[in-house]
Amino acid sequence: MFQDMLANVRAKCPLIHNITNYVTVNDCANILLACGGSPIMADDKDEAAEITSICGGLNINIGTLNSRTIPSMLIAGKRANELGHPVVLDPVGAGASALRTSTALKLLEEVKFTVIRGNISEIKTLALGSGTTKGVDADVADQVTEENLDAAAAFARSFAGKTGAVVAITGAIDIVADDKKAYCIRNGHPMMSSITGTGCQLSAMTAAYITANPDHPLEAAAAAVCAMGLAGEIAHRRLSDMDGNSSYRNYIIDAIYNMTPEMLEKGARYEVR
Amino acid sequence: MFQDMLANVRAKCPLIHNITNYVTVNDCANILLACGGSPIMADDKDEAAEITSICGGLNINIGTLNSRTIPSMLIAGKRANELGHPVVLDPVGAGASALRTSTALKLLEEVKFTVIRGNISEIKTLALGSGTTKGVDADVADQVTEENLDAAAAFARSFAGKTGAVVAITGAIDIVADDKKAYCIRNGHPMMSSITGTGCQLSAMTAAYITANPDHPLEAAAAAVCAMGLAGEIAHRRLSDMDGNSSYRNYIIDAIYNMTPEMLEKGARYEVR
Amino acid sequence: MFQDMLANVRAKCPLIHNITNYVTVNDCANILLACGGSPIMADDKDEAAEITSICGGLNINIGTLNSRTIPSMLIAGKRANELGHPVVLDPVGAGASALRTSTALKLLEEVKFTVIRGNISEIKTLALGSGTTKGVDADVADQVTEENLDAAAAFARSFAGKTGAVVAITGAIDIVADDKKAYCIRNGHPMMSSITGTGCQLSAMTAAYITANPDHPLEAAAAAVCAMGLAGEIAHRRLSDMDGNSSYRNYIIDAIYNMTPEMLEKGARYEVR
Repeated sequence: MFQDMLANVRAKCPLIHNITNYVTVNDCANILLACGGSPIMADDKDEAAEITSICGGLNINIGTLNSRTIPSMLIAGKRANELGHPVVLDPVGAGASALRTSTALKLLEEVKFTVIRGNISEIKTLALGSGTTKGVDADVADQVTEENLDAAAAFARSFAGKTGAVVAITGAIDIVADDKKAYCIRNGHPMMSSITGTGCQLSAMTAAYITANPDHPLEAAAAAVCAMGLAGEIAHRRLSDMDGNSSYRNYIIDAIYNMTPEMLEKGARYEVR
Repeated sequence: MFQDMLANVRAKCPLIHNITNYVTVNDCANILLACGGSPIMADDKDEAAEITSICGGLNINIGTLNSRTIPSMLIAGKRANELGHPVVLDPVGAGASALRTSTALKLLEEVKFTVIRGNISEIKTLALGSGTTKGVDADVADQVTEENLDAAAAFARSFAGKTGAVVAITGAIDIVADDKKAYCIRNGHPMMSSITGTGCQLSAMTAAYITANPDHPLEAAAAAVCAMGLAGEIAHRRLSDMDGNSSYRNYIIDAIYNMTPEMLEKGARYEVR
Repeated sequence: MFQDMLANVRAKCPLIHNITNYVTVNDCANILLACGGSPIMADDKDEAAEITSICGGLNINIGTLNSRTIPSMLIAGKRANELGHPVVLDPVGAGASALRTSTALKLLEEVKFTVIRGNISEIKTLALGSGTTKGVDADVADQVTEENLDAAAAFARSFAGKTGAVVAITGAIDIVADDKKAYCIRNGHPMMSSITGTGCQLSAMTAAYITANPDHPLEAAAAAVCAMGLAGEIAHRRLSDMDGNSSYRNYIIDAIYNMTPEMLEKGARYEVR
């Protein structure tokens, strides 16, 4: 059914309000356009609620959070909740500083999220209320592997139950879970970690998918994760000898642009645990 | 005469002060370099006037306006007026929030703009003093078509007369008008709307064109609009099967970089109404 | 020995805290990943010290400095000093506004920098305590040429002696000097100045090089400068007829990604004065 998730994004062209970091914001906007959505970025508290209101969904990314934008995140999140709009949280770097951890926890407390997407270290930080991460990358000790996959899936389901959100933990193996069901996804390519912002882009795109598929947040989020991984695979096959991570970045967004529902359905590699 | 407009940009390398959004700022800087200008971005109120002073022209884009940068826009705009520097306004998302609409109107009230460039919904919002837009894209109901082109051109001329600015309304058909004359431009490609920031880039480039051609703001702005559209056409012809919107973004800037005055003169497609 | 400098970056994957401008931040992140480092961007004063603490090195770039981020630069710089972390200063546009000049001077006063990297106009501004620059580009009158190279190298050594930092002056000929020794580097291509942010990218990469080579800041900085210039050469040879500055930007980062220690050793072109 993942093909329907993508087809709905293309059919509905959901407008997504992004309060996101300035490092990867351009890529987030372009991948939203590539997948069939439409982006708007607005982070001033004096317009946050209003911009949320005209959009279909909201994506909150704390990557370069600051004293000016944190209140805007809370305002926009609450407004989205009032309106019943889907909301994604990307807790970039939660665990790397007290400000990031406390802001992510405060957001979790005051806003009901539809999807929480991060790497395993970030999600563990949210679940435990504290944590350490190696900057914005997952700690090696935390990595999801074949060996601990069942435990990781159980953790994801449990945190989903606790928050009421779909939990998407991305890494070498991705897990997308609600409280009952966990998709374990094996799309992607290791080179994706050599580009800044594949996670941010995925969060933005996930917001488009869940907004276009309001009745299926779990499947929509899993479809977005598969689409991103599949794009990483397609883009990797396209690399020539002289290409590096900058061309790879372009090719991934290009692959999202050219992805058909059929390609996604056929290329998605996952099992349910 | 459009070829002279571009030749002057390349000859004079105008330095453009940009107070612009963080979504597309890198593309704005690169397209300014591509066309032959030189960019500087500075948005703190403590340096806005001074940076404007050392530049030849100013580009104000309200795409991610906020409480810190709005005063800087006003300061820079007034300083540019005092110095007789050309100023472009890009009212991104005017109509999408009260903050954007009121800021754009306040800028119009306190700063004399040489060119105002936006989509039809944004420009209508400025003309009417209120409005609604679908985020940062034009509302479908507002689109300029062959059927309403005369009326749209008349509207552009009238708003130009009211503001004293050249008005550039970009979309499937572009209109660039002063109070007497409207260029209706048919360059461009629909795929340009699948990239974030082609409008922002055009505004930045327009600032370079009007700064290098101070006695011909109408023709300079029309030349910039033609150049952007022509670049969209050239870049589109260059696309291979696997290319998508991210490669297209690069190709458009590349096309601006490689555009000669002769190519622009030959490729510009417009009529005057 | 430049090959060891790069090999150490790849082996140690230094985590670099960047407080940098929003124009080129994405390219800075991607070039850090390309060279083998890992980026984190964080500019709020409430987390600046803590993020610095978890990183190996710090890169301070004043390109879009503002009232909110200047205190963060000072806090992070002091914390890095306390921890003995290497720190790079990129005084973008020093001389272009009083705010930039005074902020750069204040940073120099309160923070001990390991490397100061800028164009000749920026570095002269720091050395003289005032200056004028053509925006963010070097003033033509200041350019380092074959004729004034000895004098420029002497100036660099002298400013290095005064500040205790390695001084990297980049332009057509690059100079990287401590108080005793100046590397004069002839890598690079003129087209690099048609891209925004090659300087910013180099500063970020330099932070990774000096962090991975703590006992050799001079050689590490010189190696980074050679690597950037060599990437500019490799990328230029790759350009096809339709490529322009946007593709060139991608190719440079790609070339950094694909550069081996051997390629750097072989391709570095410099003499010591």
